Amino acid sequence: MSHFVLHPQLQQDSELVIELTLCEVRLINDAHYPWLILVPKVADIQDVIDLSEVQQQTLWQESALVSRALKHLFTADKLNIAALGNMVPQLHLHHIVRFKHDISWPKPIWGQVPAKAYIDADKITLINRIRTEIELRKNP
Amino acid sequence: MSHFVLHPQLQQDSELVIELTLCEVRLINDAHYPWLILVPKVADIQDVIDLSEVQQQTLWQESALVSRALKHLFTADKLNIAALGNMVPQLHLHHIVRFKHDISWPKPIWGQVPAKAYIDADKITLINRIRTEIELRKNP
Repeated sequence: MSHFVLHPQLQQDSELVIELTLCEVRLINDAHYPWLILVPKVADIQDVIDLSEVQQQTLWQESALVSRALKHLFTADKLNIAALGNMVPQLHLHHIVRFKHDISWPKPIWGQVPAKAYIDADKITLINRIRTEIELRKNP
Repeated sequence: MSHFVLHPQLQQDSELVIELTLCEVRLINDAHYPWLILVPKVADIQDVIDLSEVQQQTLWQESALVSRALKHLFTADKLNIAALGNMVPQLHLHHIVRFKHDISWPKPIWGQVPAKAYIDADKITLINRIRTEIELRKNP
């Protein structure tokens, strides 16, 4: 059995926010929307059902935790959740906070507009806010 | 508390395959890809985390059941799973079987090409095949 290694494309596009039991939670470097991915730290997984049943339960618990944190931090109009993976096959679960005034609304975000990189200071602040909110909800 | 009523847009775009404990499983009328939606039969739900914890568990169990059925029936290159709901706010969970030779690959399917309606006989055959496969896996 091989060892989990984050896909280089995900490594390049995102930055670690927090390590949960199953997943790395990472911020995508696109200032258009607060956009996280959850990446289960399990090798050779492409689809959700490739995980064991226990791992799937943990994945969805961690997804709900992240969703509640995002919902609390941002006054979102909608939360988009998706496991696509046509380009990067390693399983990663998108969590994107959507606003009626965002640049791609109401379309799904993929392929709409090029990513807009964060200013470094803004990214660090945002990562810290999200990490703190997840930590709080993890240990209430 | 209001009563669950399927959103008219989902009603128009899809046809019932099978009723599960929590969700209606419906086939989207687009012959480009085998494309199901799971719609929890609960009123006033927009995001997954609006469901109770028990309902969320059931949702993901039913999602895994449908995913396994689709994976068995089709030699898919990828399964796309998504809860978007920017257009139709009623929670519905997409399950789309993707092939490297499909018309939108590798892009997400939304907004790529107009839907291509099934020929009626093909749709009935497909719905029956999917229903049978889900029934088999529900009661092994």
